[in-house]
Amino acid sequence: MTTASMLAAPAPADLDDLPLGFPSIRAAIAQGADPVAIVLESRRRAGAIADEGVFTALVPEELVRAKAEEAAARARSGEALPLLGLTFSVKDNIHVAGMTTTANCPALAIEPRETSAAVLALEDAGAVLIGKNTLDQFATGLNGTRSPEPLCRNAVNPDYIPGGSSSGSAVAVARDVVAFSLGSDTGGSGRVPAACNGIVGIRPTIGLVSNRAVIFNSPFLDCIPIFARTIAEGNEILRTIAGFDALDPWSRRDADAIDVTPAAPESRRIAVPRRDQLRFFGDAEAEAAHDANLATLERLGFTLVEIDFAPFDEAGLLVFQSALVAERLVEYGDTLASRPDDVHPAVRASIEPGLAYSARDAFEALYRMRRFARFAEGALDGFAALVTPTIPTIYRIDEMLAEPMARNTVMGTYTYYVAPMDLCAVSVPGAPRGDGLPSAISVVGLAGKDGEVAGIAAAFEAGAAAG
Amino acid sequence: MTTASMLAAPAPADLDDLPLGFPSIRAAIAQGADPVAIVLESRRRAGAIADEGVFTALVPEELVRAKAEEAAARARSGEALPLLGLTFSVKDNIHVAGMTTTANCPALAIEPRETSAAVLALEDAGAVLIGKNTLDQFATGLNGTRSPEPLCRNAVNPDYIPGGSSSGSAVAVARDVVAFSLGSDTGGSGRVPAACNGIVGIRPTIGLVSNRAVIFNSPFLDCIPIFARTIAEGNEILRTIAGFDALDPWSRRDADAIDVTPAAPESRRIAVPRRDQLRFFGDAEAEAAHDANLATLERLGFTLVEIDFAPFDEAGLLVFQSALVAERLVEYGDTLASRPDDVHPAVRASIEPGLAYSARDAFEALYRMRRFARFAEGALDGFAALVTPTIPTIYRIDEMLAEPMARNTVMGTYTYYVAPMDLCAVSVPGAPRGDGLPSAISVVGLAGKDGEVAGIAAAFEAGAAAG
Repeated sequence: MTTASMLAAPAPADLDDLPLGFPSIRAAIAQGADPVAIVLESRRRAGAIADEGVFTALVPEELVRAKAEEAAARARSGEALPLLGLTFSVKDNIHVAGMTTTANCPALAIEPRETSAAVLALEDAGAVLIGKNTLDQFATGLNGTRSPEPLCRNAVNPDYIPGGSSSGSAVAVARDVVAFSLGSDTGGSGRVPAACNGIVGIRPTIGLVSNRAVIFNSPFLDCIPIFARTIAEGNEILRTIAGFDALDPWSRRDADAIDVTPAAPESRRIAVPRRDQLRFFGDAEAEAAHDANLATLERLGFTLVEIDFAPFDEAGLLVFQSALVAERLVEYGDTLASRPDDVHPAVRASIEPGLAYSARDAFEALYRMRRFARFAEGALDGFAALVTPTIPTIYRIDEMLAEPMARNTVMGTYTYYVAPMDLCAVSVPGAPRGDGLPSAISVVGLAGKDGEVAGIAAAFEAGAAAG
Repeated sequence: MTTASMLAAPAPADLDDLPLGFPSIRAAIAQGADPVAIVLESRRRAGAIADEGVFTALVPEELVRAKAEEAAARARSGEALPLLGLTFSVKDNIHVAGMTTTANCPALAIEPRETSAAVLALEDAGAVLIGKNTLDQFATGLNGTRSPEPLCRNAVNPDYIPGGSSSGSAVAVARDVVAFSLGSDTGGSGRVPAACNGIVGIRPTIGLVSNRAVIFNSPFLDCIPIFARTIAEGNEILRTIAGFDALDPWSRRDADAIDVTPAAPESRRIAVPRRDQLRFFGDAEAEAAHDANLATLERLGFTLVEIDFAPFDEAGLLVFQSALVAERLVEYGDTLASRPDDVHPAVRASIEPGLAYSARDAFEALYRMRRFARFAEGALDGFAALVTPTIPTIYRIDEMLAEPMARNTVMGTYTYYVAPMDLCAVSVPGAPRGDGLPSAISVVGLAGKDGEVAGIAAAFEAGAAAG
């Protein structure tokens, strides 16, 4: 956003054209726009696509107005509200008191008494919640079609999958309905849909953001990712919601000591998978875009060093090809047992194998996970980050529905390994593909390196825009 | 040890009377005694009780001599060897290359290629390993009788159990055979035998001491405890073996940052279980001794504050009354399945329930464990430590054999909860009981508070001696 465009920021009457990213909202407010009106414009846009599979539920307009007015009154009374005028939505496995949590399975229908700690922190900073987003049911999927009708569609090309499982959260940002959104990420759900829709997806270090009042898939692997238009915007939200939470048993004790502000990395060396280990599943557009993205990194002065990616592939299998899948039975097992027909067939097929694992299997899987995390510390030592594509390819919705298990797994090629190895990652858009779909890289770092990962991603973002 | 007694330290000819604690060994060496001869005297004493159930195997005398001479040569060449002349033994679930590891089940018979990281650190500091100690088979028991004949006997009164599972390690120190020893502690094995035999037992924070090349019961709960005559001696060994180990996936990343040197606590408030929740199982001697021990703490200026002990009791159930017991199947399950008759009946009865748990059960138990750990942080906030008896009572060997399951569980009344709550603990001898058996308190702190716990224990040790 240049100074010129900021000066040209719309008067209140033009709010229906206002881009809902942070800089334009702030410019509008600075020029006298009413933050309440901006929030209501966001709510209006959400209402306009209410039947397009992006939201499972909207916050009633009157409640949105009341929340927006409350924030505006706090600001007028002198309180610093950094997120004033910004709206957001959250994946429908994040609890908000007063709204039914469905995880996109109406049979689940939890009426939470508590609002998620992350939502509370955002509201405290002045942001206003607009609605809850569609997801691959039970946050189990990476493609966005494991959902009741109407299916959520890709924001760039509606023939394509939106990616999942945080499909609606990513699409709500990409379609300029909200300023940012929250999802959940176990095996890639905070990065794959960002890549599919051409926006930024930030998967923080596990335990850095409180998971209090969120339905979990795996407390060992889960975290709340952020969807935003830019690294700067996403990182601002991360800074707002990061921190130790004594009420979340999985919160990192040292969360407050981790500085997530984008930082220049100590090293200029970036690890990349060995060329023969990169898989694009025949998608020449994806491969060409990734080559362009790597060239951008080199132009920025980074040295790309090939490493053996096989152990990362192997670690990724833990997410669904090990006893860890049984963790999903803790939250969803009772619904699966009592109302199996209410569970999407692909989700059932993904979770039911968990029933066959023994306690010994579970412990052995956790031990392997620990060993992989320790391995990654050594493998990435001396590197600023690991960079891969975020997704190896993308499918049309009809292609995905034709082969819903195998092609879903394909989408996790470059995301599954991150959580079992206790890494953090950011997906950032790169060179557009020849067919107009977006490309993206994932910048991946060791736990606690969120700031350096953001710094590299921001540099790449600027470099890709310039290139 | 006074200056007078140091001056009277024995010449080499008197080594058979030399107490093998650190001060007397160092005094002897300072007066010209040959450290090799002192080490060989320790080995001689071990050989003299080779058929008394304390050792499962001794290091051959010639190898002991060679190791002692190597250390002496390093010292002569100017290398600082803080543990020169000190001998130790290790529980027979700690690997030493060249010695068969049995965990007191000859059918297990592992021939390790690698020596435990802790043993290597001690040898590097000049200490010499004498032998491997008896244990409750598979480190599963707290009484010391779950062992092939001859049974290990209490060092103070041989009619009584030595406590377990690190029975031989504690008795070897208490009978003045070695300077110190190592065990393993999951649910109390590093503290109960210390209490039974009147010595110090230090259970470090989980992950503070490398568990590399040790047979585990539960990597979530296990650590290597130290048996010694005094807090000062045990703490010196802890400082030698503590620290981050990149080759142990369970090593704490911040292990090097934890200062374990005995320190004055920030608070003078000590939490104690509510009086009506203290259980001595009818043992009036134990209760009277504990009253005297609490009086000692008050005399030292500590304020005792009663807290609700019920959640601690509940957390302790996780060790054997949850799916966590299935972790023991990882190392022992194959022997249990293929050679059940080689497994002690009480050990089998303890471990076999693990076969019935599902993966979901395992994860749910781990989640409960995490919640208990977080609970403990709150419950102990503002306290210098929690103090309980280490053991509620002690049984004669014949009494234990008559009721081997229930009475074993009794022994863990005040130790089981420590590991699931991620606490550290020290057992330190207190007032002698009227019947001449030792009493002990456990000083318990949050993870990483090893230094403060040692400081309190050292103050109590001095106070109890003065009292």
